[in-house]
Formats: sequence, C-alpha cells, structure tokens
Amino acid sequence: MKSVVVDPHTYDWEGDVPLARPSSRTVVYEMHVRGFTRHVSSGIAEKVRGTYAGLIEKIPYLRDLGITAVELLPVFQFDPQDCPAGLVNYWGYAPVSFFAPHQAYSSKQDPLGPINEFRDMVKALHRAGIEVILDVVFNHTAEGGHDGPTLSFRGFDNAAYYTLEQDLSKYANYSGCGNTLNSNHPIVRRMIVDSLRYWVSEMHVDGFRFDLASILSRDSSGHTMSTPPVLWDIESDPMLAGTKLIAEAWDAAGLYQVGSFIGDSWKEWNGRFRDDVRSFFRGEQGVVTRFADRILGSPEIYTHKQREMEQSINFVTCHDGFSLNDLVSYDQKHNELNLENNRDGSDDNRSWNCGLEGPTDDPAVEHLRNQQVKNFFTITMLSLGMPMILMGDEMRRTQGGNNNAYCYDNANNWMDWGLLVKHADIHRFVKLLIARRLLRGVEAEQQRKSLDQMLREARKAWHGVKLEQPDWSDWSHSLALEAELKKQKLLFYLMTNAYWDALDFELPPTDDRGGDPWHCWINTALKSPLDIVEWQKAPAISGDKYRVEARSVAMLFRNLGT
Amino acid sequence: MKSVVVDPHTYDWEGDVPLARPSSRTVVYEMHVRGFTRHVSSGIAEKVRGTYAGLIEKIPYLRDLGITAVELLPVFQFDPQDCPAGLVNYWGYAPVSFFAPHQAYSSKQDPLGPINEFRDMVKALHRAGIEVILDVVFNHTAEGGHDGPTLSFRGFDNAAYYTLEQDLSKYANYSGCGNTLNSNHPIVRRMIVDSLRYWVSEMHVDGFRFDLASILSRDSSGHTMSTPPVLWDIESDPMLAGTKLIAEAWDAAGLYQVGSFIGDSWKEWNGRFRDDVRSFFRGEQGVVTRFADRILGSPEIYTHKQREMEQSINFVTCHDGFSLNDLVSYDQKHNELNLENNRDGSDDNRSWNCGLEGPTDDPAVEHLRNQQVKNFFTITMLSLGMPMILMGDEMRRTQGGNNNAYCYDNANNWMDWGLLVKHADIHRFVKLLIARRLLRGVEAEQQRKSLDQMLREARKAWHGVKLEQPDWSDWSHSLALEAELKKQKLLFYLMTNAYWDALDFELPPTDDRGGDPWHCWINTALKSPLDIVEWQKAPAISGDKYRVEARSVAMLFRNLGT
Repeated sequence: MKSVVVDPHTYDWEGDVPLARPSSRTVVYEMHVRGFTRHVSSGIAEKVRGTYAGLIEKIPYLRDLGITAVELLPVFQFDPQDCPAGLVNYWGYAPVSFFAPHQAYSSKQDPLGPINEFRDMVKALHRAGIEVILDVVFNHTAEGGHDGPTLSFRGFDNAAYYTLEQDLSKYANYSGCGNTLNSNHPIVRRMIVDSLRYWVSEMHVDGFRFDLASILSRDSSGHTMSTPPVLWDIESDPMLAGTKLIAEAWDAAGLYQVGSFIGDSWKEWNGRFRDDVRSFFRGEQGVVTRFADRILGSPEIYTHKQREMEQSINFVTCHDGFSLNDLVSYDQKHNELNLENNRDGSDDNRSWNCGLEGPTDDPAVEHLRNQQVKNFFTITMLSLGMPMILMGDEMRRTQGGNNNAYCYDNANNWMDWGLLVKHADIHRFVKLLIARRLLRGVEAEQQRKSLDQMLREARKAWHGVKLEQPDWSDWSHSLALEAELKKQKLLFYLMTNAYWDALDFELPPTDDRGGDPWHCWINTALKSPLDIVEWQKAPAISGDKYRVEARSVAMLFRNLGT
Repeated sequence: MKSVVVDPHTYDWEGDVPLARPSSRTVVYEMHVRGFTRHVSSGIAEKVRGTYAGLIEKIPYLRDLGITAVELLPVFQFDPQDCPAGLVNYWGYAPVSFFAPHQAYSSKQDPLGPINEFRDMVKALHRAGIEVILDVVFNHTAEGGHDGPTLSFRGFDNAAYYTLEQDLSKYANYSGCGNTLNSNHPIVRRMIVDSLRYWVSEMHVDGFRFDLASILSRDSSGHTMSTPPVLWDIESDPMLAGTKLIAEAWDAAGLYQVGSFIGDSWKEWNGRFRDDVRSFFRGEQGVVTRFADRILGSPEIYTHKQREMEQSINFVTCHDGFSLNDLVSYDQKHNELNLENNRDGSDDNRSWNCGLEGPTDDPAVEHLRNQQVKNFFTITMLSLGMPMILMGDEMRRTQGGNNNAYCYDNANNWMDWGLLVKHADIHRFVKLLIARRLLRGVEAEQQRKSLDQMLREARKAWHGVKLEQPDWSDWSHSLALEAELKKQKLLFYLMTNAYWDALDFELPPTDDRGGDPWHCWINTALKSPLDIVEWQKAPAISGDKYRVEARSVAMLFRNLGT
C-alpha cells in the first residue's frame, strides 16, 4: 500500500452542507457499503455493485423506508487481510489510514476516484434528507500485535502511536485486535481530531460512531482518565460542533461505560437496551422493571438531567451479533465457518429460536418469528431515545446463525434483496412504524415534534393486566404504559405480553374523558396488513378490555375530547 | 473596556518571519516595554516614550549590547487597576484579553494602531537579528477573586474558565492573584493554544515565557497531572514548533517543578541557578558543590539525557526580585511604598549590601559592588545553558531596594539612561562578555558554535586552589574549572573566589602541552578596561600561580600547540 497526495479542493459540492438533523428526529440505519448492493439481487449494474456509487442507486429504497441517517461500517482504508488465514476482513475494523476512504468500495480506481465517489454518495444522501454517520475505528490499527505487519505508525513512532505493555515489549490489547491506539498521546489525539475534522470539512459527513470508544478514555498506561483529553478535544472542537458523536461505550478489556461515558454531548449505544429487550421478549424472568426503564429512555442509566433523551441509542441488533431474523431463529450461534471451532462470538445472545433451530417452513414457527421481529421493531421505535436498526432486518436478512460474521465477503453476508419480496410484511411494518415515529405527513409535523418528543412530555403511568396494578414481580411478563399527550389531546396505551398465553388487558375507561373510543394502531399478533395500520385508518375497539395474544405487542390510541 | 473586531490581514510584513535562532546561540534580555524608554533620559520623542515605537528607536542599543532576544513583560491587554488602591499594576500580570496587545503601550490609539505598532516593533527587532519572546500569563486573569470585577470570562462560564474551590463558592488561588485559570478545561486550553498560535502566525513572535507555568499542570481540582493536556497541546502544536517555550516552573501554591517540568521541549527558568549563584558570591557555606553543578548546566537537576543544555535558563536577577545593583546594595528588601508594611516580596533574597545598606559614595564599597556585579555576569554568561539578563542590570539600574516593584509606573521603575554613563564600565563588561559568548567576529563563527557549545564538548576538570584538589567541603568558597577544547586547541581556566581574602590558584602547567602561555581574559577585581579585554589583546601571564582577589572571578585561556 502506498499513500497518494491529492488536491481535495477540486470537487464541486454544489452547495451541499451537513444536514444537522435534530437527534430527536433521527432514525439510524446501520449498514455495510459493500454488503448493501453487492448481491446480484440488488439489480444494479455489476460495475457499481458493492460501491459508494451502488449505494447511491439504492437511495430511493432508503428514502422510502424512511430512515434519516445511514451509519456506515468502517469506510476508512482498511486491510482486508487483517484476519485469520483463509478468511477476509469484511467488516473493515482494521484501519490503515484515518484519512482515505476505502478504495475497494469505489467503482473508480484513480487516486481521486474513491474520494469523489464517496462525496457523490454523501451529496446524494443529503439531497434525499439522509445523514451520513461513519463508524470510526480509533482504538487500534491493522498493524496488529507484535507479529503484525509494519505499515506506518509502528515505523514512525511505535511508543507514541501505540499503548505498550509496561516492559515495552508487547502491545496492550484493549481492542481485542492485537494493539491499542495510544489515543490520549498529544500527537495521536491531534491526528484523531484532524481526521474527524477532515471527514466533516472535506467529506461533509454528519457524525461518527466510535468503535470501542471507551478505549479513548484510557491513558498511556491503560488507566481510565476522568477527563480524557481526546474525548474533550472531540467534544469541544468548533468544527465538530453539531455533528452526532456516538460512543460504543465499552472496550474489549473490561471497560463498560454505558450511562457513564465521559463528556456532555456524547450519545451511547445502549447495550443494555439490546440485552433487556431481548431478555423480555424471550420470556426471561426478573426483567420487567428494566424493560420498563428501557422504554422510557433508560433514565435509570442516564440520570444526568442535562442530557438529551437521545443519549440512549436504542437498538436490538447491530452488525456485531445476530441479525434480527437470526435472533428469533437460533438458540445457539453457528460460527463454524469462522474457523475457530465456534469459540468466537458472544455466548450471551439472549436469543430464542421459537421452537426450531434455524430456517423452517413450519407456518406456526414462522408466524411467531414474524411476530417477535415486529415486537422488537415496535419497542425500538416507540422507546424514548434514538433508534437504530440493522441493514436488512426489515426484510429478515439472515447470517445463517453466525453472530460474528466479520469474515465473509460473499453471499452469506451480502443483503439478499429477494427477501424484500418474501418478507414484504415486515418491510411494510417497519416503514409505517418509522413514518409514524417521525410523524411524517401528519399535522404535528408543523410542530416540529416527533412522536418520541411528544411521548417524553406525556404524563405516563404504568399498568398491568389490571389498571393501576403493574406487576413488577420477577414472574411478570407483561406491562402496559399509558401516555397522555395533553397538547395533542391524545392518549396512548401500549401493551406488551411476553407470556406464553394471551392476556386480557383492562383499558383505561373512555367515558370519563370524552373523545373517541380506543383505536388499534399496532397489534403484532395480527397478520399483515392488520398488524399495523395507517393512523387515520386505525379500527375502533369496543369493550373495556383488549386481548393481547401470547408474545405480542399492541398499541392503542384515542383522541381526547376538548 | 470593549472589544473591537479588526481585520489583521492588512499588514505588510515585508517578508518577515520568526528568526528561529538556536537556543544555544541565544542571550535573553528581560525587559519592560514601557519602562525601557519611558524615562525622559531615554532621549527619544515624548510621543513615543514608553511605547512599542519607542522600543524600536532603542534597537541600536540592544544590538550594540549584543543580546539576541528580548523577553517582554506582559503585553497582552491588562488592567493597570488590578492592584491595591493608590497603586498601579505596572508589570501587567493581569490579563484582560489573550489576543490584544496592550493598548497603552502604543503611540497609536486607533483600533488597529496597537496591533500594527506591535508588529512594526517585531519586524524591526527581527531585522536587527533580535527575537521576541513574550511573557504570557495563562494562570489567572484580571477578574481577580470573588470580589473582583466581571470583565468577560466570569460572565461567559465561570466554572469552565476558572478553577473553583470544592464548594464552588470561591476561586482556587494558585496564582496568588485571586483566581486560577482552569487551563486544562478543553475550552480554556483551546483558547490558550489559539492565543499562542495567534501571536506566532499573526504577530510573528518567536517564543513564550509562561508565567507560573506549573499551574498549567494542574487539573480542575488543583491536582497535578502527569500529562497535562494543555502542556502537550502547546508542545505538539505544528504552528508552535520551533518557538521557544520557557516555563516559570513553579506556582504560588507550592508547586516547584524546576528540573521536572512536564514535557520534552520546554525550557525552564532555573531558579536554583539564581539562588545558588547568589549564595555562593555572598559567601554562604555549603554551596560550592551546587555552584559547580550550576556552571555545568545543572546536570544534577536536568538529568534527562535527551534534553538540550538550554533547558536551563540561567539568570541571577529578573523582574521579580532585586535588580542586580540592589542585590549587591541591600541586605533587606525595602518595599514600604507598596503599602503592605514591607510584608510583600520574597524574604529569601540571598543578597549582600557589601557593607552598607543602600546607595553610597564610599569607593571601596562601590568597587566591591561593581566587582560582585561583574562576578554574577561572568558566571551567568560562562555557565552552560541559556543566559538571561534583566533590563538595566548592565548599567546597575536600581529599584531603591524594592524587590517587588510591580506597582509603580514612575521613575522609580523606568530605566534611567543616565546610568549608562555612570556605569559605562559595567556596560562595557557585559557587552564584551556577550560578544565572546556568541563568538562574534571570530573565526569560530563559521563553525556555527557558541562558546557555550564549545564548553559543553570540552574535557572538563575541577580544581581547587591546588591543582586536582577541588575543595568540596562546606567551608569552601573557591573553585576552579579547567576546560580543554580539543578541536579549537584551546584551554580555559576559570577561577572563582568568594572568600574574604585573596587566593593564589595553582595553574595547570604550560610546559607539557606546548603552545602559548596563559592569557588573562577576565579578572573582575581589576578596574575597567582591564577587567575584561578583547580576546586577541588578552595579556600573557607568567608563573605557575595566579592571584584571584577576594570575591572575584578570573578567566584565563591559552592556545594549545598542534
């Protein structure tokens, strides 16, 4: 690999600027540039499949889905060979340069080609109202451990760029990838900030998701700092002001800072949302109180009053782990192809196969899986915070049970667009959910508020199967949330049932407040297109109880009288 | 006070750039812009007395004296009223803005006037080969303590800009000036670096001396940090690379980091040079070993092998304390006019009045004082490191025994140019000493080495009154240093006698090496012009001993044979 000096200032941005969309109106779509369009089923020209240009061709799909930001897995030039022999580093968490877009993702191979094709992509996404967030890896490089290749930093100043063990003979390995970037070294933190500034000023990206961000809070000896200079540099840099800063608030050596990541404006991948919501819906005991907290934006975790609700990035799946389809299709990980005897990848998946391990044609199992998928989407989209969904989950993309699919650049990993036909019901469900979350096309749009923002301000009350009797016991598998939006004269009733039997929930009485009867917006137990309906078409409900089927979620609303 | 926005880019620098003179060829002159020319005796037009423009008129004097850098007491806009009532803050350690040159030092009062007059001064100094170092105050501001005025930062974000006591009700006062700038806060350290970059890029200054720099190593709680971000930011900033960074390596709350100031390229005011050289020449016991160490660049203090010898800024006097004349004219400080009942100012002055307190016409006392002054200059200029002298010491400027003369803007503080006539002998002595230190006009100039650099590489040996018998005992008041410069085929013999009687020093024999006899370059006991002679005119010495009078220094040399 060689570096090439180019003049980046010859590009015509045509007036493009970062979108600065409020976090409260953001829905993130975590995706892989190559995997998104590499599959032949993407239907685009072979030349641009799997490239920045290919992504541009699929912008109409993203726009139709309704997401507002793409979060791209690493696009810094990486080493696909930073991987065990016989495999390939597909994800790209192996940076070689912090300033060059990955060349192989470009359909143009001249020196300026990848840079300008990346910019074309950003510009086109911005025109579609979609922000670009980069997954950035500032915790290690592709130079690996002491037996890794010498590409650059190791030769420039090994002890400055890397955190070394005390005897200086080996690399500290807080990243789990062989080395640890010495990010609070003054030269290294300047490089990191310079890199971020470059991607904002020269490439117009809108934000960053910092891989293993907790490493950035470690000093040169590996100790956690109370005010890590590099984090403050990033947070207080004028050029980075307004960009989205998202921390993966843990590392591979024991730091877990979800809820306590250092700084004032950072958002965090809420790993506990993922864990608790998964636990709840697979029927674990003792999780209902945590589940309730997650729905409300995890106030138990994010206690700081001066922070935005969006500090919590709510997600059930991400690239790292099972896809959503696999979460409801596998009890166990199936990573044999990774050549580590299925030892790699997390064992804490909180997954449930719904009765059968792996793919099946059994309609009952399939129905339950669909239902669970919709349960997860519903809770992710209705919880307070900033939701993130994983590329392909909206069409039940599978990794065949692999929960660590970093090492295949083939159809096992690429998005199979054929699934969009097979699982059109899920796609429709997600699309309607997002549209309503963002209050697209409804009057409240003018108020510049999202459903999320409205729910924050609502008067909220917890209930159980019986009104005013939420069951907080370890044996509880159900919970209902009443939310009154006074300004909007709207009442919501969210019922969740993770129990193995249907439950009849008492409904708050309609006669004491005037207005409409209850309407059913969402019922994940119903088949498409009844599972979610357009708001205006939601059917009225009669009676003072509502049956929520086993392992399903229902969301009712009613308009209150004046 | 109001801020004014100006366009600083309209100035014609005429190709000026910072000089980047090697530290090893640098002699610093610490001076006060206003005090330098404000006195009527300066002989310059009244309009420009005490201004940047006035300083320009005296550049020929500085150039003739031979110094290579001026170190200006604070020139950031300060509050002259930040002082007890009835006094005036003359020194200027009371910054109001970190970006504006002090307006009162300019003969032009339009918004761009002070900026451009300051630049005229820098440009003119550079043309004379003289660098500009600024004494910068980033440890506190003129907003003072909790009862001080609100000028800016206190209103912007009190808790960000200042270090507060734990209960947040009062300011931490590590500066002794009422407040402490919270310099490692990310916003504040960015401001500090922005300020420094501004003075380099827009004002072309060559370096900085950081007042109470140790405060910059404290965190927001006042604790000392092992890698203070602001220090590393400064040290590693590309735009500041090559500038001289000088730390006053202590603060007013107990930190004393001489020899241990954090960072790789910082130089330090060596307060222990000042203290030990003073102690030695006033005849204290138990100081000879430390005195020897100071001559060699204080290797006992600066043990780091990767550092330059110039890490040690060697000085005997500076603005803070007695002037050199007063150091040899007063046993006690006389600060009554400061209105604090003589309680302010240091009590550790290590001064000696040579027999009478204050001014005298007694010729014996005056001769001794002259001799002591020359002793101090000789050791300062011949010691390894970067020497600094205080404005006016070359003409025995007096502060009337005041060792804390920060609060008078009058003739008590201004330089009286009439002294240049009265003490022409001292002025001549200093001038010749500097010229030789920098090897001006001699063949070695072509080798781009200073005397200091040559001495570093020399084979050195300590002697006493008897050869090879240095007296390291507590009762010793004398020491001789032999330095052989092999390349230059030169032998030096420096004899110091702080004893109350003359001492006859054995000389290294001349017969075993060939070459010339010993020549006497300096003998501080002799009257001008015999006290120091031009190198080529140094008289030959005969005999195997040399008498060094009480409280005097002699420096001999001889050319070695081939």
